Parts: sequence; C-alpha cells; structure tokens
Amino acid sequence: MHILLILRILGILLMLFSLTQLSPLLVSFWFEDGAHKGFIWAFLVTFGCGLLMWLPVYKRRGELRTRDGFLITALFWTVLGLFGSLPFILNSNTDLVISEAVFESVSGLTTTGATVMTHLDELPHSILFYRQQLQWFGGIGIIVIAVAILPMLGIGGMQLYRAETPGPVKDSKLTPRITETAKALFIVYVMLTLSCALAYWLAGMSSFDAICHAFSTVAIGGFSTHDDSIGYFDSTAIMLICSFYMLVAGINFALHFYAWRNRSISHYFRDSESSFYAGVLLFGCIIVCSFLYYHEHYGINDALLHGIFQTISIATTTGFTTEPFAAWPSFIPFFLIMLSFMGGCAGSTGGGMKAVRVMLIMKQGIRELHQLIHPNAVMPLKVGRRRVEAKVISAVWSFFAVYVFAFISIMMALMMCGMDQTTAYSSVVATLNNLGPGLGDTAANFSSASEPEQWILSFSMLLGRLEVFTLLVLLTPAFWRH
Amino acid sequence: MHILLILRILGILLMLFSLTQLSPLLVSFWFEDGAHKGFIWAFLVTFGCGLLMWLPVYKRRGELRTRDGFLITALFWTVLGLFGSLPFILNSNTDLVISEAVFESVSGLTTTGATVMTHLDELPHSILFYRQQLQWFGGIGIIVIAVAILPMLGIGGMQLYRAETPGPVKDSKLTPRITETAKALFIVYVMLTLSCALAYWLAGMSSFDAICHAFSTVAIGGFSTHDDSIGYFDSTAIMLICSFYMLVAGINFALHFYAWRNRSISHYFRDSESSFYAGVLLFGCIIVCSFLYYHEHYGINDALLHGIFQTISIATTTGFTTEPFAAWPSFIPFFLIMLSFMGGCAGSTGGGMKAVRVMLIMKQGIRELHQLIHPNAVMPLKVGRRRVEAKVISAVWSFFAVYVFAFISIMMALMMCGMDQTTAYSSVVATLNNLGPGLGDTAANFSSASEPEQWILSFSMLLGRLEVFTLLVLLTPAFWRH
Ligand SMILES: [K+]
Ligand SMILES: [K+]
Repeated sequence: MHILLILRILGILLMLFSLTQLSPLLVSFWFEDGAHKGFIWAFLVTFGCGLLMWLPVYKRRGELRTRDGFLITALFWTVLGLFGSLPFILNSNTDLVISEAVFESVSGLTTTGATVMTHLDELPHSILFYRQQLQWFGGIGIIVIAVAILPMLGIGGMQLYRAETPGPVKDSKLTPRITETAKALFIVYVMLTLSCALAYWLAGMSSFDAICHAFSTVAIGGFSTHDDSIGYFDSTAIMLICSFYMLVAGINFALHFYAWRNRSISHYFRDSESSFYAGVLLFGCIIVCSFLYYHEHYGINDALLHGIFQTISIATTTGFTTEPFAAWPSFIPFFLIMLSFMGGCAGSTGGGMKAVRVMLIMKQGIRELHQLIHPNAVMPLKVGRRRVEAKVISAVWSFFAVYVFAFISIMMALMMCGMDQTTAYSSVVATLNNLGPGLGDTAANFSSASEPEQWILSFSMLLGRLEVFTLLVLLTPAFWRH
Repeated sequence: MHILLILRILGILLMLFSLTQLSPLLVSFWFEDGAHKGFIWAFLVTFGCGLLMWLPVYKRRGELRTRDGFLITALFWTVLGLFGSLPFILNSNTDLVISEAVFESVSGLTTTGATVMTHLDELPHSILFYRQQLQWFGGIGIIVIAVAILPMLGIGGMQLYRAETPGPVKDSKLTPRITETAKALFIVYVMLTLSCALAYWLAGMSSFDAICHAFSTVAIGGFSTHDDSIGYFDSTAIMLICSFYMLVAGINFALHFYAWRNRSISHYFRDSESSFYAGVLLFGCIIVCSFLYYHEHYGINDALLHGIFQTISIATTTGFTTEPFAAWPSFIPFFLIMLSFMGGCAGSTGGGMKAVRVMLIMKQGIRELHQLIHPNAVMPLKVGRRRVEAKVISAVWSFFAVYVFAFISIMMALMMCGMDQTTAYSSVVATLNNLGPGLGDTAANFSSASEPEQWILSFSMLLGRLEVFTLLVLLTPAFWRH
C-alpha cells in the first residue's frame, strides 16, 4: 500500500472538489439569495483540508497498483461524500443535522437522488443548484471509474468488454490511458448535458431549471428543484425529452463515445447489452401502461405517457416522478421497483446490477435448462458471437449473490432500528440500486428516517455505487496483509 | 418419451397410493368419527383410476431415460396432489372447495404444512390422521427422489455427492439400484419415526397425537392435530424432543443410513454440509434468543427455549409453532423467514434451497473477494478436501438465480391478484421453501387467500419441492422435441 501517495491524490482531489463549491457561490450572488456564506466556508474548509493533506507529501511519487485502486475508489466517494455535506451543514436555511447533510451529499454524488429535504421550492437557488451539480459531477465520476478504473480492479460489469481489450488495460498498473479515456468520456457527457438543457429550455423550462434538470437527467440522478419533480412542469414535451435523455444516459458511454467519433449509430443495435436493456424497458412499459389502462387509472393517452415516463425513470434508476407512483394500483410500484434491479448498462450513470449482469444471469439459467435436457452436450455461454470467459461468469454470479446478501443484511439492520418491512425493503432498493424514491414511509423523502437509519442508508448508497465488491474487499483481513 | 410406460407407472403408483387411504379408514372406525364414507369413496376412485391407467398398458416394458425421469417426477407430485385431495372433497365435515382441498393435499405431500383448515381440534380423528400421514408419505417420497432419482437427472443439491459416486449412477438409465437405496432409506425413516413417536408418548402426548406428530416431525412437515400446534401441549420436554428430531430430520438421510449401517456418528462432523447446517442454526439461535431476551419479551429461560425451538422449526422449514412468532418484536419474524431459505440439507425432507447450495454460494463469494485481491492466483473452490466440479458450481448458481426469479414471479402474480406486499412476500416464502406458516394475513392459515391465490400457492409448493428445474424443464419447447 502506498498510503502517502494515496494521501497526496486525495489532497489534490479535495482541492479540485473545493472548486466545485464556487459555482453555487456565483449562483448565490446572481440570485442574491443570501446563502453565499455557507459556500465560502465550505470552499475554505475543503480546500484547506486538501492542502493540509497534500503539502507534506506533495513530492511523493510512485506507481499505483490494483490494491491502491480499491482504496482510492472507495475513499473517493466516502471523502467527497463527507466534504460535500459542508454547504448543507454551514447554511442556516437548510436546517439539517449531520446525518441528514451527509445523506443528502452522498445521495447527490452517488446519483441516488433520495432526499431528506422538504419544501424544495422555498430553498435558496444556490443550494438547489449545488445539489444538482453534485449529481452531475458524481455522474461523470461514475462513468470514468466504471469505464477506466473498475475493469482494472477486476470489478464491474465492464469485465465483458475488458475481455476484448488487449494489452495494457489487463495490466495491474494504472496507466496514463485513463487520462485520455476520461477526457473523451467527459466531452460526450458535456455534449449530452448541453443538448438536454437546450431541449428543456426550448420546451419551456426557465434557464435555471433547464440547466439543473439537465444535470440530474444525464447523471441518472433524479434530484429536482421542485417538490413535485418533473410533475411540476406539467408538460408532455418535457416528459418526452426527459424520457429520451434518461434512456440515452442509461447506455454505456463507451458506445456514445464511439458514436460521436465515428458518426454512426448502428453499433448500438449490435451491442447485446443495449439490446437487452431496450428489450427490458419495452417489456416494462407494455406491462405498466396496459395495467394502468386496464385498471382505469388513466385514459389511453395518460396511461401511455405516464406509464412510459415512470417505467424508464424507475428502471434506469433515475427516480424522477410526475405522479405519486407509490399510490398506483396494486402491483405496479412493486414491479417498477423490481425493474430498478437491472438499472442502466455497465459504463453508464445508472445504478442497479447493470443490464449486462442480468442478461448473463438469464442466459446462464436458460443454458442450464437446456443442459439438463441434453446432459452430454457442450454448451458454452455466448454473448453475440463471443464466448464468455469462465472468469467473467464466475464474477457475475458472485456479484449477484453478494448483492442479494448485502440487500438482506441492510434490510435487517433497518428493521432492527424499527423500520417496518415495506419501508425497509423499498428503502434498500432505493439506496442500494441508487434509485432514489422508496415506498411506504419513504415514498416522498427520507426525512422520516431516524439518524442511525440515515447512516445505514448512506452506507447502502456507497455500497451500491462501489459495486459492492470494492467496499467489501476493504473489509477483508487479506486486503490489509503484507 | 415412453408415454405408455409412464402411464403404466403412474397407474401402479395410484393403486399403491389408494392403499394409504385405508389406514385413516381404520382410524375412522376405531374412533367412530363417522368420516369413513369419504375414505371409502376416495379409495375406490383412486384405485379405479389407477387400474384404468394400468390395465390397457400393463404389459408395456422398456427402459426409462433421463427425459422420462423429469416427467415422472413432476407427475408423481402433481397427480398424487390431485388425488390426495379426494378425502377432503368427499368428506362433509371439512367443507372445503376444490382449490382448498388441493392446496391442503399438495401442502401435505410436499411437506409444506400450510393449511386452509381452521378449528382442527373439532375435526374427525381420521381426517387429522390422514393429513399427518400425507406428510409422512410425502417425506419418504422426497428423500427417495432426492437421493436416488434427481441426481440422475442432474438436478438437486446431491450433485456434490454424485460427483463421488462411481459407475451406474452417472448413467442416464434408471438402474435397479434405486430399489435398494429406497429400501435402506425407508428403514431409516421408519426407525426415526418410531423413536420420535415413542419419545413424544413418554413425554406425555396421547398415543394418537404422538404418532401423528412423529409423522409430521420426521417429514419436516409441520401439520398438527391442534390449532395451537406444538404450543397446545405446553411442555418443555415435548419442545426439546421436537427440536431434536427436526434437527435430525434436516440432515441428509444418506448420512443417517451410513450411521445406522456402520454404527458410527463421526462422519456427521466430517460432512461439510452438516457442519454448515449446524453452524447456521447455531448462529440463528444466538441471534433470536438474545433478541428475545434483550427486548424483554421473555425471561432468560423462555427466551432460550422458545428461541431455539422456533429457530430450528423455521430454519429447517418444519413450521411448528408454540407462540405466534409473527407477532414477535421487530425484525425476528423476517430474520427467521430468511433462514428458511437455507432449509435442510440435500437428501433430507427439508425445504428451501438446501444447506449445500447456500454453503457453495457463500464460499464462492468469499473466493471471489480473495481473487480480487490476488488477481493472478489460481483458487479452485473446495468443499472439505474435494475440489468442486465447474459443472456443479454452474448448476448451483443457476439454481439460485432461477429460485430468485421464481420467487419474484410468483410474488408478482399474487400481488396482481390483490395481495398486499408483506402477505405476498411471506406466502411465497412459506410455499416455495415448503415452510408452512406465513406472516401478515397468512400468519395463521391460508383460508383467507382467494381461490386463484390458492392455485398459485399450490403451484409454488410443487415448484419448490421439485427443485424448480424439474418443473421448468417441462415448460421448455426443447424438452418436447424429438
Ligand atoms: K437515481
Ligand atoms: K414444512
């Protein structure tokens, strides 16, 4: 372990992160909302801490290895999550205790979008902007880490892609390729955000709302500047734009990058994961729309509009709402929440288990059935025309089991704190899948959760975002040996 | 497919099964409870149907193959489940509609022990005896099928053992070895039942109750002749005897057979699955007992007694109760019900996913963590000193995924019928794990479930008992080709 080197990186990271507290400061001055002091203090504290970490070790050089990668990735989210809560704590308008402020900050950075804040519409613009921006930076962090770093650690749904990439990526050293890849992904991400904001603005949002919602849409975050979320705008155009961008943001950004560089879209259809992802969303939309219509909850038009919007929003784990879907008839809320276990594709900002894993698990189940009928046949598992490595399959299975195990453990911890079963169940889905809204007591927001519950849920959001294993590895004694 | 041969076997099976309706007939005469007519009719109809199936094809000979094995196993439970409902339908005392009668019969034969009957204490002795006996015959059927037949089909937790067995067992032909194995297992089963009944009787049960409860204890069934289940007797001795026999019945019967033949018990401790099973039960008991004591629900003695009894009863999927555990504080009912996903060992009468599978899944998860830390190390998965075949691991993973998938699908189907989430959730656990009691509306019994819900739950019990795959294979088009 290169502790001092890691300290240096964290110091730089914190100093960079402190800069992100300057833009809400500008917003505060622009709207004269009086919340500027909190951001100035947050900036100074964050920058100062970063400087204090960096200064003593700034000359430290060395090569990072896989093991350091786990620690950095986990610390990245944890440390930023903690420091990101400063503006909420230091601002008198928000009135949050520490557990709530950290919850809100972690929820933003992990693009979960669960909130403990109420009466959003009355909050200062700068605070609202800051929340949205947290999601946006969280989003690009997720993509870079998922595409460039996790595969090197042997974690994450991108393993399937990794099997194809020759040479240095398979090495355990973190190579300079990361910088290039990160730059390219960042450009795509910015372009997507700009076009989304423009579309929102053209559809009638104020420029402030357009930018804010573009941030949380492209990040699959789900934070909004209004209590009624997207429902506030009451606009079919905005719902359709939002649906489109959620759909796009849930696809692997490596594919978007490819599309942008080669001016082609045919590879989306050739990609097995994207096709599976689209198929599941289509299936979900059909079920939800027909159920809404059949139960006479809506007329045909509204059933289609709300059904499609809500299915995409929950299945991609964005978590925007137009209607209180938790109150929809019978099994729809449960069905939607189950879809969020898929979430987005690997290498997107979506949460959940990722489409590629769900696809591999299903394929493996079907393969096993055929194997039982033809016990002596040799049937390799294939995606497209490619045979899936045994190592990848084993990693996917383990991920599934560990995910289920983490789910049950967190749910039990919440129930030990006294939560009822439905609320506990949906709160874990909402946080572990980085979805956002729950059912039961946490359908609207998490302010009713107790302090210990909020800490547990913050942990759950981090665990989900770190693909469980990154954090679990740190908890094994074997990791700290040597 | 040898349809006519299968018909012949089913015919014989039905004629044999009809004989089991004669013992409750004797009970009816003995107690003069007036319920004899139902059993006479049930006997005649069952025997008649069996004869009609058998007569036209009684000369049919041939060799059964794997494919036929799936069909026979699935039909075995389905057909017996249907015919087993006749005494409930034909008896005026029970007042059950068809869906309820089939539910009760399937629940008996699959040793689930969920009931739609209320006021058990007022029912005729013969009906009560018949229910208990259904579980007992179901239990031995399960063991023989799990130990002797499923491994040949490539299904079930016994695969791990199968890898060791040389020669004919690996063949796809059903060999005469089945008869021998079945006989040996039956002897062990009978001995266990007799000693259990004797112990109950010495502890103060009437001889009728002793026999009846021995039937459902050894079968991990959970049916009782009293509404208050084991709680009716209010006896520490009976609770301890019951705990012991549930524990024993949850262990692989192949091990019991070995113990009986070689007068040795040391192999229980060498067997990885048994050790894991005991470890999980111990862990569960500690959690439950300390929670009961800590929450001041009981004093120290009662916390221990009820905690241990209820943990063993639910974790082994027996489903006996002494107290309404669904009303225990906060998270205990949920925790207990999660334990039932383990259930018994492979080759026992227990339900759930079986200890060996849960053990392999956990081992694989831990292995994966270490693999992440040492990406280049070669780490085969081992049980004891034996390396686990890749084929077995893959089968276990697929089972896990398919089990979860079946769980969610059935739960959704129930919620579509209008069940609330907690009741639906626990009803699926109760039936798919062959556990018995649920939570919420089905905590005491399933008479509140609607007819479609009862059909779905009967299917769920069959699915669990047939280790999911046996039934799923029949639903694939590939199975019916050729
Ligand atoms: K989200
Ligand atoms: K049972």
